[in-house]
Amino acid sequence: MSSAWLLPEHLADVLPAQARRIEEMRRCLLDLARSYGCELVQPPLLEHLESLLSGQARSQDLRTFKLVDQLSGRSLGVRADMTPQVARIDAHLLNRRGVTRLCYCGPVVHTRPASVLSSREPLQFGVEIYGHAGLEADLEVIDLALDALVAAGLPLPLLDFSDARPLAALLVGASLSDCQAVRAALQVRDAQQLAQATAMLPLAVQQGLQALLDLEGGVEVLAQAAAVLPNSDALSQALRDLGWLVEHLRKSHPSLQIGIDLAGVGANEYYTGVCFSAYGSGQCEVLLRGGRYDEVGAAFGRRRPAVGFSLDLKALVEGLTPSTLRAAVRAPWGDDASLRQAVRELRQQGETVVCVLPGHEDEGEEYACDRELVGQDGQWMVRPL
Amino acid sequence: MSSAWLLPEHLADVLPAQARRIEEMRRCLLDLARSYGCELVQPPLLEHLESLLSGQARSQDLRTFKLVDQLSGRSLGVRADMTPQVARIDAHLLNRRGVTRLCYCGPVVHTRPASVLSSREPLQFGVEIYGHAGLEADLEVIDLALDALVAAGLPLPLLDFSDARPLAALLVGASLSDCQAVRAALQVRDAQQLAQATAMLPLAVQQGLQALLDLEGGVEVLAQAAAVLPNSDALSQALRDLGWLVEHLRKSHPSLQIGIDLAGVGANEYYTGVCFSAYGSGQCEVLLRGGRYDEVGAAFGRRRPAVGFSLDLKALVEGLTPSTLRAAVRAPWGDDASLRQAVRELRQQGETVVCVLPGHEDEGEEYACDRELVGQDGQWMVRPL
Repeated sequence: MSSAWLLPEHLADVLPAQARRIEEMRRCLLDLARSYGCELVQPPLLEHLESLLSGQARSQDLRTFKLVDQLSGRSLGVRADMTPQVARIDAHLLNRRGVTRLCYCGPVVHTRPASVLSSREPLQFGVEIYGHAGLEADLEVIDLALDALVAAGLPLPLLDFSDARPLAALLVGASLSDCQAVRAALQVRDAQQLAQATAMLPLAVQQGLQALLDLEGGVEVLAQAAAVLPNSDALSQALRDLGWLVEHLRKSHPSLQIGIDLAGVGANEYYTGVCFSAYGSGQCEVLLRGGRYDEVGAAFGRRRPAVGFSLDLKALVEGLTPSTLRAAVRAPWGDDASLRQAVRELRQQGETVVCVLPGHEDEGEEYACDRELVGQDGQWMVRPL
Repeated sequence: MSSAWLLPEHLADVLPAQARRIEEMRRCLLDLARSYGCELVQPPLLEHLESLLSGQARSQDLRTFKLVDQLSGRSLGVRADMTPQVARIDAHLLNRRGVTRLCYCGPVVHTRPASVLSSREPLQFGVEIYGHAGLEADLEVIDLALDALVAAGLPLPLLDFSDARPLAALLVGASLSDCQAVRAALQVRDAQQLAQATAMLPLAVQQGLQALLDLEGGVEVLAQAAAVLPNSDALSQALRDLGWLVEHLRKSHPSLQIGIDLAGVGANEYYTGVCFSAYGSGQCEVLLRGGRYDEVGAAFGRRRPAVGFSLDLKALVEGLTPSTLRAAVRAPWGDDASLRQAVRELRQQGETVVCVLPGHEDEGEEYACDRELVGQDGQWMVRPL
């Protein structure tokens, strides 16, 4: 019993100062998404495993807590990512013909933390645009992502672009296990591991994959890639798309730092086109991640163009100064009707009114009160403390 | 694959119209709680089973999904109730001497639905006051609960009072299994089942328990209880407390319907004093439930007076008319700087601006737009549609 208050590793309570900050940021980001025309949806915490892990989301398998549904005997998972859930909603429940913009905000749970400092219960906020295959949707999502960081009080991030297509073009015809080995090697940027993983592939592919590792830097990387990678339609399209996005972002955000990293397509197998990560200045943790994943609805019977981003609100707030508690009004306890009315009116005006419960008059204040409600000549008035 | 979009029974997606309503209500209730001086906390979704089920919360065992922590090999539970978690936070993390007011809002998950229409994933909102043993704290919690229902747009509910002490006084010395059998019989209000459950108890206790079943009605029940139940300090204290609360509530809410139901202490074993349920007019589903549970922190090594209430935001919103979507402004797509600036300014003013992505000009609107942004003589202006 003495240790009943101990929490599992990488799970923590969020205490008032931080919880207040997260709630403020949550409202701010949901309002921002609404101002872009995104509609809020709330998928359930638990789903059948085959829904959560369907299609491109199989990489989530190891991250997903499993449990048994007593009502059906079937296996359920605790969601580790809300993106496939929102794709399911677009595909099946809304089933609209045109462009659909959705947003969501809720906890996801991971069996293992993403890093030594990560929580196993991120608070995922995200935005998705379905139904438009053009780059304008990518640009809108990136604009919204940048606005979200600025709204959070962060400076413009370093925006690092990658694209799933150059890698996919090189891996055409490779086995699933080869693909996985290559992705793993690229993720840790290990040339030797990559050489081992690609030993059985054609020489041109081997060379192309090794070249990917070096295709990291500024926008000049796009020209380098065109020169060193094997020519393909997918490659040229990817480079053209990246160039278009960079050009438009430079116009709208002249001071934005932009990087290109063609090996950085990373762990998320579900990207099918441009993808991006935003890093804070001086931070190595990624602030948000997004991109195009046109296949994400296929598992639910509806292949729609899709692009979006998501972030962990808890992690985002960690780098910020905690919000200050709005100072409150202290009021005496009593059931005098005029006192109750005065308290009620102050609260309706948005004030916090802390009624001092009888016997606790001399206790240290738990809540910062800078004014008090006092009765004088039958009137109640607020005066400074 | 074809059924990957099917959800487990009693779990559902919340679609835009309902999600918007829930989000509005969430903000409204959290702001209301803040205006009373309640600080927000966010406990984790998963905890060690012995923490979630410690002390009086053992009745949660069957309702709690269990899983295994890969990091420690220990058993975890998905929280089925946040009250014990918040008690743990008060006891261990905040560890304050004086009065502490806390509030919370988050999903909880149940293995089985509470009723045929219930969700297995309620969105629990709740408030707790720790550190004050007097009735003033009970009254404050009830005031806040009533304000919450009114803020939700509901009429004043029927407020049904019960108390854990008359039952506890009758069951002094009874075995745990007898107590459970008695509670189960009282919960379904079955006199015969109660007679079977109490057959081995002293005759006075049997008669007292049977009498409890009939002690239901208006405030006159308090006097009847004093007449028919075996006299005890606990009983008189309970009846005095209920009388005090009824008297004060009648003063502050003259039109509030108040009922007394001494058998209604129901399923929640953790109440130790006055408890209450609020019912909407014409509804048999309970809107919210609360009461005093002074023992709730004991499992975490700190026995503090505690009183609070909680409700399911999803269920609360079901009875309400869906909120209307705020009409939006339709804007053309383009990267002209003056257009981007006009869109940005409208969004900052709180407007929703939907940029029509190229090629989708003729699609039916997914979002209700009543105005459009048009360029005229180099200026952008909003005009009605």
